[in-house]
Amino acid sequence: MSKEITSRAADYSQWYNDLVIKGGLADYSAVRGCMVIKPYGFALWENMRDELDRMFKETGHQNAYFPLFVPKSLFEAEEKNAEGFAKECAVVTHYRLKSDPNHKGKLMVDPEAKLEEELVVRPTSEAIIWNTYKDWIQSYRDLPILVNQWANVVRWEMRTRLFLRTAEFLWQEGHTAHATAEEAVEETRRMLDVYETFVEEYMAVPVIKGVKTPAERFAGAEDTYCIEALMQDGKALQAGTSHFLGQNFAKAFDVKFLSKENKLEYVWATSWGVSTRLIGGLVMAHSDDQGLVMPPRIAPIQVVIVPIYKGEEQRAELGAKAGAITKELKALGIRVKYDDNDNNRPGWKFAEYELKGVPVRITLGARDLQAGVIEVARRDTKEKTSVPVDSIVETVRVLLDDIQKAMFEKARAFRDEHITRVDTWAEFEKVLAEKGGFLSAHWDGTPETEEAIKERTKATIRCIPLDNAQEEGTCVLTGKPSAQRVLFAKAY
Amino acid sequence: MSKEITSRAADYSQWYNDLVIKGGLADYSAVRGCMVIKPYGFALWENMRDELDRMFKETGHQNAYFPLFVPKSLFEAEEKNAEGFAKECAVVTHYRLKSDPNHKGKLMVDPEAKLEEELVVRPTSEAIIWNTYKDWIQSYRDLPILVNQWANVVRWEMRTRLFLRTAEFLWQEGHTAHATAEEAVEETRRMLDVYETFVEEYMAVPVIKGVKTPAERFAGAEDTYCIEALMQDGKALQAGTSHFLGQNFAKAFDVKFLSKENKLEYVWATSWGVSTRLIGGLVMAHSDDQGLVMPPRIAPIQVVIVPIYKGEEQRAELGAKAGAITKELKALGIRVKYDDNDNNRPGWKFAEYELKGVPVRITLGARDLQAGVIEVARRDTKEKTSVPVDSIVETVRVLLDDIQKAMFEKARAFRDEHITRVDTWAEFEKVLAEKGGFLSAHWDGTPETEEAIKERTKATIRCIPLDNAQEEGTCVLTGKPSAQRVLFAKAY
Repeated sequence: MSKEITSRAADYSQWYNDLVIKGGLADYSAVRGCMVIKPYGFALWENMRDELDRMFKETGHQNAYFPLFVPKSLFEAEEKNAEGFAKECAVVTHYRLKSDPNHKGKLMVDPEAKLEEELVVRPTSEAIIWNTYKDWIQSYRDLPILVNQWANVVRWEMRTRLFLRTAEFLWQEGHTAHATAEEAVEETRRMLDVYETFVEEYMAVPVIKGVKTPAERFAGAEDTYCIEALMQDGKALQAGTSHFLGQNFAKAFDVKFLSKENKLEYVWATSWGVSTRLIGGLVMAHSDDQGLVMPPRIAPIQVVIVPIYKGEEQRAELGAKAGAITKELKALGIRVKYDDNDNNRPGWKFAEYELKGVPVRITLGARDLQAGVIEVARRDTKEKTSVPVDSIVETVRVLLDDIQKAMFEKARAFRDEHITRVDTWAEFEKVLAEKGGFLSAHWDGTPETEEAIKERTKATIRCIPLDNAQEEGTCVLTGKPSAQRVLFAKAY
Repeated sequence: MSKEITSRAADYSQWYNDLVIKGGLADYSAVRGCMVIKPYGFALWENMRDELDRMFKETGHQNAYFPLFVPKSLFEAEEKNAEGFAKECAVVTHYRLKSDPNHKGKLMVDPEAKLEEELVVRPTSEAIIWNTYKDWIQSYRDLPILVNQWANVVRWEMRTRLFLRTAEFLWQEGHTAHATAEEAVEETRRMLDVYETFVEEYMAVPVIKGVKTPAERFAGAEDTYCIEALMQDGKALQAGTSHFLGQNFAKAFDVKFLSKENKLEYVWATSWGVSTRLIGGLVMAHSDDQGLVMPPRIAPIQVVIVPIYKGEEQRAELGAKAGAITKELKALGIRVKYDDNDNNRPGWKFAEYELKGVPVRITLGARDLQAGVIEVARRDTKEKTSVPVDSIVETVRVLLDDIQKAMFEKARAFRDEHITRVDTWAEFEKVLAEKGGFLSAHWDGTPETEEAIKERTKATIRCIPLDNAQEEGTCVLTGKPSAQRVLFAKAY
């Protein structure tokens, strides 16, 4: 029995959940708002992590690890940051359980084991890290510090969705320290470019680079840069952020350095992160009503080989052929799986790997093989072709590249079709309601107008694009003068 | 100014801390009992993790990720496990902070945001994982489940030491589910073998495989297998454990499967783990009074090249030569660093890389080069040799293998010299006090005697070796009959 997937048209939100859960990526857990990342989903995350990690190291960064807990007194040191996260903090108050005298076999929090100072489970690590950097930095010779951490963080969200918004999630957070503002801004932009490259070239998801308005900035940042992607339902997804933190954390934690000119100065900071949320974006950018569609470069399984046989003799024969093909593909670094599990029929397997989004399926049929051909199916377009046995490896190699490119082009065409210039409020509301996507509109630059638009339509300013054309115009809501368009959208 | 290291003879414990902190592996943090793993220490951990991860995958395991938090009601389900960890649990009781009305700019725990059920920060994940496996397992076709997780865990220890015993640490925990007891025991032993291979072949630390006495078992296990290593001060270190959990967790979480014979049966379980504690063991097994000594196979930097020059012309010349050597070494997969940082003198660099334990140092001198030779120094024995320029790459390649082997042999000789057969209580006390190491002694098999010996001497039974000879004898403390010797030692 193949697994039922709700169609996008019937219920987009349920479609998403079906893909994540039935596709084997993740599932709900016994802990409110926390998910279990299943092996197939984690293998995807590992591929993403490994590529990002390689890119971070190529740009001079090293990994380190800082404590899970942040003492409350450190957490509150940078006021804006603390204020921004205070409402969603899991707090450790005790360090021991004891037997509950009133309930045999049960435990209770030991009231005598109350911590003198509460510990916040990190929602982000600027505080604990800048408190550490204070000890690492004395002179300009200690700068820059280019450190990244792969970690779990906790933000107590009231409404959660698998991958997109969970109480606990996995991420990386880069935290760098610099001698000058220019260098810090350069780093902020460099890492934004790294994110763009990764999301576009590996995840095959096109993004728009931009800067957030003050209202949408990271709490404690001077500037928040972002990459914004578009999902198939016309909603935007913030796929990564890179923050120029100015000297805010250096001042909060008193981190100064002796400059080349022998002056004590505050250090300049950046932080930047992407998370398992990207997986939610991947699912919603590419998948269809039959299931997930994985971009080859990060797909946990790039090629699956399914044999069709009768009896043990044919099974052994196909197994030998599959072994030879597998060996050649693996030699090219291609991740391939041979599935001759007897518990499931070929039709079930076809549906299962379609659901899991495996980019290429090879069907090994006994009759086909006698005729010297093998059937190859690509997941993205569902096209099937018969290719001569001898050219199967080369065909697959080329096909994986083709699929990667085609997926990106398809997503980009969809995204480009869904950037609409609107010049009146009537248009704004109509396009947002009927078409969705990004609305390129003039805005008067005030937080009041931004808030008013959000309240009326739920659309927010996703970003001011980095390559934005300067163009005189009038605000779509207030009619006041504006110097450039910004991108509005409803967002995840 | 080079960094001062306390000698082993002067203060072993301070020597250890000096190496960890001044060697750049880790440091204390603002959070009681939690450490910061610094970039050099984390690079070491990454190398260890990557090798172990490869070995886990080669033995058929997949990674996944389970929640950080365990609801109290799940945590207490397996009573022995709960009892074993209850006294060291960090407990989340609230999910929000708010502004403290009595202290401007400060935060307080919001009493209105109290959780209905407290969440334990995982000290180990059997409970949350077996509660999940309940949904994954219906029939024998779903077995075995071979899953591993890389994660942080928290155990609220009262006395902490960097790497060896910290409130938060990083580890991997494998959790497998099987249809039969035999298969689960086989898995338990297989992973013990993987740990042995890793610790001996990569960390160059010899270990003794054995099984723990009931008193030393993991809380909730039927049998705990372990690998035990010996440190230079004669104390033992438990380097890894692999547990046969029987059906304890399956019963606690009601995890049954339909067998091939169509019967509902409880699932059999194993769990196994190693942690950042291994780094503490690595430091104490190999280092000397000049600093760390890294085994080449996991050393973050395997080869450092230090130039000695006067003026920019010589610097450029040596830089070109170093570039060529670096390129060739990297092509062989060797991790090499060229340090021509002008802020530090060569002598400072020699001391620094000695402290950091870099296995091979190449000194590039302008005069040497004119004579066609290069000086190569090995960290473990501190021997230096001059080799012809043309053979430098091959020399280094061979040397790295030699150092790896020599470090293991040296540690093994030390360990073997420190396994002492003792047959009387007087001998036991004398050897333990004067020589340390493992004491191979007869024990009457009772927990009372085990406890009495521990109280008198602080020595515990580290393990009953797996390849133990059966030999009639009398207990070293009580004189009662015994069928085999066991290994006692003081331990970290």
